[in-house]
Amino acid sequence: MPDAASSFNVLLTGFEPFENDPINPAWEIARALDGWQHAGATVRGVQVPCVFGRAIEALDEAMARWQPRLVICLGLAAGRSEMSLERVAINVDDARIPDHAHYQPVDVPVVPGGPAAYFSTLPIKAIVRDLRAAGLPGAVSNTAGTFVCNHIFYALMHRLAQQGMGSEPVRGGFIHVPALPEQAARRPGMPSMALETQVQALRVVISTALAVSEDVREGAGQLH
Amino acid sequence: MPDAASSFNVLLTGFEPFENDPINPAWEIARALDGWQHAGATVRGVQVPCVFGRAIEALDEAMARWQPRLVICLGLAAGRSEMSLERVAINVDDARIPDHAHYQPVDVPVVPGGPAAYFSTLPIKAIVRDLRAAGLPGAVSNTAGTFVCNHIFYALMHRLAQQGMGSEPVRGGFIHVPALPEQAARRPGMPSMALETQVQALRVVISTALAVSEDVREGAGQLH
Amino acid sequence: MPDAASSFNVLLTGFEPFENDPINPAWEIARALDGWQHAGATVRGVQVPCVFGRAIEALDEAMARWQPRLVICLGLAAGRSEMSLERVAINVDDARIPDHAHYQPVDVPVVPGGPAAYFSTLPIKAIVRDLRAAGLPGAVSNTAGTFVCNHIFYALMHRLAQQGMGSEPVRGGFIHVPALPEQAARRPGMPSMALETQVQALRVVISTALAVSEDVREGAGQLH
Amino acid sequence: MPDAASSFNVLLTGFEPFENDPINPAWEIARALDGWQHAGATVRGVQVPCVFGRAIEALDEAMARWQPRLVICLGLAAGRSEMSLERVAINVDDARIPDHAHYQPVDVPVVPGGPAAYFSTLPIKAIVRDLRAAGLPGAVSNTAGTFVCNHIFYALMHRLAQQGMGSEPVRGGFIHVPALPEQAARRPGMPSMALETQVQALRVVISTALAVSEDVREGAGQLH
Repeated sequence: MPDAASSFNVLLTGFEPFENDPINPAWEIARALDGWQHAGATVRGVQVPCVFGRAIEALDEAMARWQPRLVICLGLAAGRSEMSLERVAINVDDARIPDHAHYQPVDVPVVPGGPAAYFSTLPIKAIVRDLRAAGLPGAVSNTAGTFVCNHIFYALMHRLAQQGMGSEPVRGGFIHVPALPEQAARRPGMPSMALETQVQALRVVISTALAVSEDVREGAGQLH
Repeated sequence: MPDAASSFNVLLTGFEPFENDPINPAWEIARALDGWQHAGATVRGVQVPCVFGRAIEALDEAMARWQPRLVICLGLAAGRSEMSLERVAINVDDARIPDHAHYQPVDVPVVPGGPAAYFSTLPIKAIVRDLRAAGLPGAVSNTAGTFVCNHIFYALMHRLAQQGMGSEPVRGGFIHVPALPEQAARRPGMPSMALETQVQALRVVISTALAVSEDVREGAGQLH
Repeated sequence: MPDAASSFNVLLTGFEPFENDPINPAWEIARALDGWQHAGATVRGVQVPCVFGRAIEALDEAMARWQPRLVICLGLAAGRSEMSLERVAINVDDARIPDHAHYQPVDVPVVPGGPAAYFSTLPIKAIVRDLRAAGLPGAVSNTAGTFVCNHIFYALMHRLAQQGMGSEPVRGGFIHVPALPEQAARRPGMPSMALETQVQALRVVISTALAVSEDVREGAGQLH
Repeated sequence: MPDAASSFNVLLTGFEPFENDPINPAWEIARALDGWQHAGATVRGVQVPCVFGRAIEALDEAMARWQPRLVICLGLAAGRSEMSLERVAINVDDARIPDHAHYQPVDVPVVPGGPAAYFSTLPIKAIVRDLRAAGLPGAVSNTAGTFVCNHIFYALMHRLAQQGMGSEPVRGGFIHVPALPEQAARRPGMPSMALETQVQALRVVISTALAVSEDVREGAGQLH
């Protein structure tokens, strides 16, 4: 058992089920890992609403409550087949469909006056390396889209960039996850990944994020 | 325990691992279900070589040995994301790459003088319906390709079509299965399905194939 | 100028515009090449309705009128990016959507009692070879779907298979063509091909089909 | 004829042919439009090398020479099917393959100390609207990758962001273009677009970029 002084929290957020779908793997993963202890850390799984603005408020509350040293936000990317380690969050909301509160922002900044983008501070290359070594499909992605997922990702990185210099910096990032088989069963042709596989992948993600302070340099770029 | 008179066999074949890949989900499923008993049937899982001609010989041997009432052949379709219930086998071998014996037939018939094609005699529409109801991704496919998978599928259906009229006809067909996560981990972007999910899907397939004698009519066609 | 005795017709059919789309490249190609003379042949471009049954009647009328030595039917495959030389027609109608007469057959044969399938009698491998040599994207396809395209393709090959033995056999087949740029402009992400490129491709197709009597053997298969 | 005082230049850059491919649509478009006059502007088509660093030098030289009011850089995105109006350039080089000078940077900034990203200052939404209205396939893209295309795009936007306040700001951005049919003919399954269609699309792009000073707000986001 870790002594109180050395134990700390890892915040893992997942969006609520979206639209008419009764389930969202992002939240199921966070729920499954809530309370998991690893390398002195305890995972805190928190559900966030699929609503512009309110998602950020929920993130802020959870960060205030748990004072995490590591924050990983999860969101569903229906149509992708592997764990997507997002590289960059951009300062724009451009919703192709309305969110859960019927709000559909188009070309407005997530944070007015904020920089155009932030890079993830997770060791995304080391994580992809370790996922693959464990037989789990993962890849770096260069776009998190322009919907609520990118929205919470940008807000997270903006908050983390404001940290004071005195303390050890909190790291964070965003991961897009595939649909569950039961979701794909309703949408022919959609790739999926079993919840158990997804949860196993997040264990690797958290373990590597806690262990690797300087990311490795391994080519994982896209030509376009 | 079923009495000897009413018990019968279901033959489930899976190809050996192909090329440099140490594992093949087709064989792993057949191995996992070998000996499974359901509705009076016992599943017999048999590995077949990934070689033109020899695959058929192995099928013939297994059919002679087990005298099955139902035969389902499995093969890997790397790149597909769901269980593919193949509708039709065509009388052509056209290999894009060599098989395991370095044989690469181009535009030769599977069975010289055989008909151009055979339809699966599995209730493919009912199976897709039941897979989806169980939360498992599945779809009808209208091409099994022109490699060893179509080859064994055509040979199977040709043999089943030669059956005498006296006995209850043996039914059969072919299912293409997705890659495993550990295979997709080596090929970025490839969809996958956990072995446990795949095995669960085959339980549904076998159960429905044994229960449904006349297939349902549910639209599952492709525009092109 | 060819003398009357040696001149002959090539029948090129294209479907009418489908659904709410005002244009169909299949018909535009046939219209553009109507009257084109090449190697002693004259192309006869004929529009056919996008309706089960009536499409075949229109084909029969055109064949009776033009007595062609070569018949090529064209259809749109929205989503494909190259000229698709279809290898095989199967004896099933399985409509995912209704046709223009609101008819939606599911799992009924094109020709009751007909064989499961027919192979194209076009030299599809030589055509693909010549298209690519001319810088035009083309490939062999192993499924023409189960909608009106496969329907007319099967009916054509069934008729050609009934030919008497006395005369030189009429050859025929089916080609799926990509959407036009103006169609893709309304459906983001859809590949397209300019009409001029498509027409140029069909000139190559007809030229090769008239010149090559025995197809080449070049691997163009699919693994699955 | 425009008087000298009111005439100005539009710079259109395109990469040289890459790898073993003898042609690159990016350069073909720039070459085809070199000298085109429209709305008081003259297009200057310039070829840039497919080499990290040297591409930027060539851009700098061309900007110094032509003093353009509008700069559009073009690059090939083999596999995409439409004109991709890139929204954002990110400050990272992560090359999956070596460039023409055998240089393969991994996770190094384009401009050390530069901001994480810049947004395009082209009216990308208005351009997509006008392309589609003209029957030309186009879409907003949220990633320009991490190779030489993103590299020159980021460098361009960094330079434009340094402009003094005195003069009217120069606008610029990047467009990924599809492969040509003759390229797709060598790579089965790859979408393509005829050069004529691509050139026509760039005429629309330039015309709209010159006419629209404030972009429209039309949803064109991605969910992920």
